[in-house]
Parts: sequence; C-alpha cells; structure tokens
Amino acid sequence: MSTALDAYIRTNRQRFLAELKDFLRIPSISTLPEHRPDIDRAATFVATSLSAAGMENVEIIATPRHPLVYADWMHAPGKPTVLCYGHYDVQPADPLDLWASPAFEPTERDGNLYARGAADDKGQMYMHIKAVEALGAANGTLPLNVKFLVEGEEEVGGASISKYVAANPDKLRADVGLVSDTALYAEGLPTLCIGLRGLVYLEIEATGPMRDLHSGLYGGAAPNPVFGLIELLAKAKDAEGKIQIPGIYEGVEQPSPAERESWSRLPFREDDFRIQEVGAPALVGEPGHSVLERIWSRPTFEVHGIAGGFTGTGSKTVIPAQATAKVSFRLVPRQNPDQVIRAFQDWVRANTPKGIRTAVRVLSASPGLVVDPNHPALAVASRAFGEVFGKPTVFIRAGSSIPIVGDFAQHLGIPTILMGFGLPDDGLHSPNEKYKVENFYLGIETIARFFEQYGEREQAV
Amino acid sequence: MSTALDAYIRTNRQRFLAELKDFLRIPSISTLPEHRPDIDRAATFVATSLSAAGMENVEIIATPRHPLVYADWMHAPGKPTVLCYGHYDVQPADPLDLWASPAFEPTERDGNLYARGAADDKGQMYMHIKAVEALGAANGTLPLNVKFLVEGEEEVGGASISKYVAANPDKLRADVGLVSDTALYAEGLPTLCIGLRGLVYLEIEATGPMRDLHSGLYGGAAPNPVFGLIELLAKAKDAEGKIQIPGIYEGVEQPSPAERESWSRLPFREDDFRIQEVGAPALVGEPGHSVLERIWSRPTFEVHGIAGGFTGTGSKTVIPAQATAKVSFRLVPRQNPDQVIRAFQDWVRANTPKGIRTAVRVLSASPGLVVDPNHPALAVASRAFGEVFGKPTVFIRAGSSIPIVGDFAQHLGIPTILMGFGLPDDGLHSPNEKYKVENFYLGIETIARFFEQYGEREQAV
Repeated sequence: MSTALDAYIRTNRQRFLAELKDFLRIPSISTLPEHRPDIDRAATFVATSLSAAGMENVEIIATPRHPLVYADWMHAPGKPTVLCYGHYDVQPADPLDLWASPAFEPTERDGNLYARGAADDKGQMYMHIKAVEALGAANGTLPLNVKFLVEGEEEVGGASISKYVAANPDKLRADVGLVSDTALYAEGLPTLCIGLRGLVYLEIEATGPMRDLHSGLYGGAAPNPVFGLIELLAKAKDAEGKIQIPGIYEGVEQPSPAERESWSRLPFREDDFRIQEVGAPALVGEPGHSVLERIWSRPTFEVHGIAGGFTGTGSKTVIPAQATAKVSFRLVPRQNPDQVIRAFQDWVRANTPKGIRTAVRVLSASPGLVVDPNHPALAVASRAFGEVFGKPTVFIRAGSSIPIVGDFAQHLGIPTILMGFGLPDDGLHSPNEKYKVENFYLGIETIARFFEQYGEREQAV
Repeated sequence: MSTALDAYIRTNRQRFLAELKDFLRIPSISTLPEHRPDIDRAATFVATSLSAAGMENVEIIATPRHPLVYADWMHAPGKPTVLCYGHYDVQPADPLDLWASPAFEPTERDGNLYARGAADDKGQMYMHIKAVEALGAANGTLPLNVKFLVEGEEEVGGASISKYVAANPDKLRADVGLVSDTALYAEGLPTLCIGLRGLVYLEIEATGPMRDLHSGLYGGAAPNPVFGLIELLAKAKDAEGKIQIPGIYEGVEQPSPAERESWSRLPFREDDFRIQEVGAPALVGEPGHSVLERIWSRPTFEVHGIAGGFTGTGSKTVIPAQATAKVSFRLVPRQNPDQVIRAFQDWVRANTPKGIRTAVRVLSASPGLVVDPNHPALAVASRAFGEVFGKPTVFIRAGSSIPIVGDFAQHLGIPTILMGFGLPDDGLHSPNEKYKVENFYLGIETIARFFEQYGEREQAV
C-alpha cells in the first residue's frame, strides 16, 4: 500500500468515525412507513458522501418504494471496474429497553461502536466510500474504475434494486461486485465468503373431505388431509436426513478438495455450535458430511411450518378438510431450481396418499452460487485481506442467500466478492448491534489495498 | 300393547305435540350465559311435566352450572327399574338467517316439526315423559319402576351430570338406562345402537432448537421439530391405515358374526357415503374390514390438528423451535384406555427422532362400550321397536362417544338402551333442525310398549 494512502487513512480515522456516527443517527428503518423521511435523509447522506469522496454522476434514483443511490468514476481505461453494493436501510430497533445505549445514538464502548446499522450495513458500506476517498486523496486518482449502487430496501425484500439491475445491465457493467455485509469467520481471521446456497420456497396444500368431519362418525374410513400431508412429507427425507425425492441431488457439485481442506482448518467446534447456537440435544444431517458441509454445500429440504385442523385449547374431534405446509429446498451450485421444482411436483403427485388431493405453489426460486476460484479478483482480494490482517485468508460459504449476488450473476454476469468485516456476535437485527471500531479502519485499508492491487491488472476482456 | 294405552296415546296426540311446542319455545341454549333464565325455565318445564305424568320425588338439583331434574316412581316391587336420561339444553340457533321459520317458534311443514331441539333432544326426551303418562293414565299404574335424570349441559360437556352419577349410585340404581338421543339408521327402520367407541385424546409437543433458527444458516445440521413431529406421526399408521403402535390392538373385540351379518343388511351404499357424506376422492382404512366395521368396531388413530413454524402469507425461512399436534385414538370394546395411553407414550419415546424432545399430555380417556347382547332389556326393546315399526329391528353402533352411557356403565354398572327416533337428515346443530312428527308418536308408543313388555319380567337379581 502506498505510504500516502496509509498516512491519509491513519490521519483521518477520527473524522471517518465521526461521519459514520452521523450516518448512524439517521433512523432509516425501511419497514416502518413513519420513517420514510429518514430513508430519504439516509439516501441523501450516501449521495453527498459519494460526491465528497470524488465519485461522479451521483444520482438518487426514485423507485416504487425507497430510492437507490448510484455513482461512478470511470477514468481508468483499460483497468477493471468494481461495482460496490451496500444498503443504507436498517432493521427496527425494538425491543428498545434491551439497548444499553440508544439505538440511534452511536456509542463507543470497549472498542466497539454500538448502534442499529453499525455492522448491518451502514458501517460496512461506508468503508467502501472512505476507501475511494482515501485513494483519490492520496494519489490524485483511482487505480481502477468504480461504480456504486446502494439500496434502501435490503431489510424489506429488495424488490426495487433487483428490477433496476435487471433493467440496466449496460449502466452497471463491471468486472466484479463488491459487498461488505458479512462477517469474519472469527475475530482477526480474514474471511472471504465464496459460496451461497440458493432457495426454492414452496407451499403445499392437501385437501380431502368436502368439509371438516366428526372423527367419531367418519374416523377409520374418511381420509385425513393433515395425516396425508404428514405421510407425504415424512417420505421426503430418510431418518438420517438424506433427501429421498428422486432427482434432487442432480447437478450437486462437491466443494473442491482445497475448499474442504480450508474448512477443516477453521476454528469450528461442533459442540459449541450445537450448544451455543442451535441449543438442541443433537445435530442432525447427512452422514459422511461435516457440519460445515451440511450447512454450506449440501442441499436441504426443510418444513418451515405446517397448519391444519384444530390446534386451540382443549379437544376437538375433527377430521379437517384441509392442511398446508411451507417447505423449501436450499440449493447448492449446479443444481437447477426449475428442475428441483419439477422433481418435487412429480414426487408429490406420485406419493400423494389415497383420498387426498395436493397442490403445490412456487413462492420463489434462486440458484446456489459459488465464485469461480480462478477469477482474478478473488486471488487479489484474498492477498490484500491477508496482508492487512497478517494471516492467510480463509474461504467459507454461507448457507443462506444474498439476493444481490444472484442479481449481479444473472443480469451482469459477474461474480461478487463478499468481503465483510463484521464479527459473528455483532448482534445484527438484535438489540445492542455493534461494529468493532478497529475493523472499520482495517476494512477501509483492506478495500483500498484490494482496489490498488486489482488495479494493477489490465481489464479482463 | 293394551287397548287402553293405545287409545290414550291416539286420543292425546295433538295435546302431546302442543306441549312439546311449548317446551321448544324456551330457548334453553346452554352455551350462552344470557340464556341462563331459559335454562331454568326449561328445567322447571321438565319437572312440571314429570309431576303431571305421575312421577314422584321430583327435584330440581342445583349444580355448579345448570340444574339437573330428577324424578322416580318406584311402586313396582320385583319389577325392573329403567333410568331414563335426556337433556333439555340446546345448541345455539345461528346462523339465524338460514332458518325457514324461527328456531324457537316450532313450525310444522311436510310432516316435520321444525325447531331448535326438536330432535336433539327435547322432542325425544319428551317421549319418555309422555310414555309414562300414557301408561299411568291407561292402566292406573306403571308396569315397572322408573327414574328420570335430565340434564341441561349436554351441549357444553355435561360435567355436572357426570359428577352427580358418580356421587349417587344408590339413588340412581337401575337395571338399564334408556336414552333417546340418536337416529334410526334409515327412515322407517327400527334401530338400536348397541356399541359406542371410546376416545383417548392427546396432545403431543415437539421441541428442538432453543429458538427459531434461520434455515439458511443452520439448515442441514439443526433438528427441525416440525419435521420431527411429522416423521414420528407418519409412523403411527401404515399406508393402508393400520395402526403401527405396538399394543394398540390389544383387547380389541371383533363384532359378533350376528352383528356383522346385521350390518351387511343395512341400506348402506359406500358410494353415497363417500360422495354425499365425506366428499373425498376415496375412502381409506384397514383392508379386510367393511366401511361400517372401520367406523364402528375398529380403533383409529387420528391427527386432528397440527401447528408449528411459519404459516402466514409469503415465505419465512425458519427452522421452528416447537411444534404441536392434537391426536386421538377411538377405542372399541375391551381396549383399555390406560394401556393405550401407555403404549402411545412408550412408542413416542422410542421413536422420537434424533435432536428432538417430545412431551405427551393426556386430555381425556374413555373406553369403548357395547351392550351385552344377552341383556334381557335389549331383546325386549328390539321386539317392541320391531312391532311398532312393522320391521325387524337392526343393531348398529356409533363411532363416537355418548358420555352418559359411559357414566352409567362405570358408576351404576348398567347398560344403556339407545333407542332413538331421529332421522339421519334431522340437521342437529344446524339451521332448520327438524323432527318427524310421526316418529314422535311412534316413539311414545315404542317406549310405552318397551316398558310394558320389560315389566312382564321379574327383576334380575
């Protein structure tokens, strides 16, 4: 890293943190309509910060819900383009009485900055802006081309940005996406998340008798849709958790030996995970796969909820007419969501018990994603991250989806570097959300260094 | 039947019906507190009617809820004693706008009397009183000893009468109970119901993780109580409906060949039952047993309701911490409810999936009952019924419970004759409840004739 850059970041630390605090004071809660003025203030704050950092073509883009903020700096011909993403909206702060200091009055304690949005995602997104500012100030120019697209609906589904990305592939064209909205695997451990599971979410309804029946009068001969649905769904997995629906595992790609080897070196303790995070008598899942493999690189079938018949206080002897369940598959790379849906529908049709009718509704479908391990940005990000933290970077995956990564992959054809600086105990969505102040500074340094080093490459054609 | 008795009933038909209409005009809805004065009026009506019919020791017995009415006539030493039961309370009448004539303004149309309670049970209970009146008026005495116990809580659980029977076995001592609160199997077909299924009703709760978990982060390794409960309950029956819980079929008594033969002659059409009553694509149940056997003389395991996790609109990717289901067994004679409960608890313990905890709560337990086919009252009732209707009496069972029958069996040690004169389409608990006027008269005649013929026997010691 250039000495000038290093010096600029060091010299301006306190100001960067003070600005972040101003940002965090805006209660831009996206799900509460009464905070709509705060949403607009936060969007304006982002736009102003981008301008001040030297970004150009700054736009606040109206959408049917909350505005997007766009900016770019495209004066490095022949160099790669990074598309930075973040979100300025936050979760509600309640229960308010569990906060040790007010959620929207950022407070430093024990090296942490406590505030709603400190880690998710204002504090992390703001590092991108400060990295650009620092590079520009130190060197008079940027080492590569940069675009920003920041949204205000991440906590409420992100519908607007998804449509915007699909509609504007030329404007957003880039070589790689950059998102800082994740956490280090453990304190001090530079971590890149290079795989995400996809999701096929479905609703299944079972019907039988034309109306609720008295179980005394009809029990033994009338089909029961609650039991029928139970019978059906129980067949979806064997006792060890392996999915029994034909075709579901088609296309499932194993993680590479290097990735597995990397996972085996993570400071993961199965007992801690079971007791402190899950809190159940035992973990479950496919034999022959480690816990991390099961939650990161294996497909799952889950029943999220089921409802049918009488569930109030006391007894009611009813054979219900109807039952429904919400179910999902988590998908891993190379599984095809459409094929998974078809496989489920075929299996439901073939296994619906006698006397019952079933209907399947698809609520959403997205594929699993993995960053091409040969993409040049990944090697550069890994090196920069490791240099700043003084340790080799580990590669992990996440079992859940980050929708923007799918949007960038689908509509822009680019991978996304998930370079987050949070910690596992940051308390996202909970009272006393925090962000480690040192990680805010290290993040700015890592991102700036990544930009510098990635900018040394000519643009991939 | 004596000519005098026959003449008395014939001569007084119109008055009997007019009195019943007065009874039906009292809206003695037991579940609505604002009708409490009507409950008291109805109890008084019953007490007054019993006195007028020549019954003695008439009592209105206060209970924690609605009064019981007791009366007896015990001047036939050496003769059997019949304990008549009925209830003066009724279901609510709503939805009121679906009634063709007001629910509490009894109206004759097409040979039927329309009113709430016409068949369930005022119209049927009143036949007992009129039979006693007619016997006394025609012969100057009764042919046997008679006791009445009438309640006002049948539609709200019948807690008071159950306690009263348990506490007063000497006062209520009798040779047989008589209940008219059921229906003929088909129009014009004299029908005695001689078996009832019992019920063990249970709640089962499954827990796993200490809190709801994100299925992306934990799916594949964390146990899911909804799926665990599904897995467990699905094992309770095989695909054909046979219960797989060890010990459940212990003690199950087959119906006698005579009973089965009688059922095979009933005007039962499986397709009509499936299409008109159940309304499902197919019937289900144990192979090798007819539909009537399955609903009358076979145990069942039913899931009445299940709830757990997210079941609202849209998608939520949760691994829930908890799930519950309401389940029951219908029991047939010689199954022991306590043993069934133990068998279920043992089975749950042995089959609870890994990572899940389960707890079973017993909500109620009652055995199945069958009238001893050799009890003298049964043969007499069958003959009297057949003579009045001009056809041989058929013996059926009911798949549901009638709690008073269990109370009489348990605390008084007596069987109960279920001699009902309703029709399957009487619309109990529904708008436009009706009772066929002719059946009201035939019922009085049948009951009187049963008393006469049963009184020809010396009392069983």
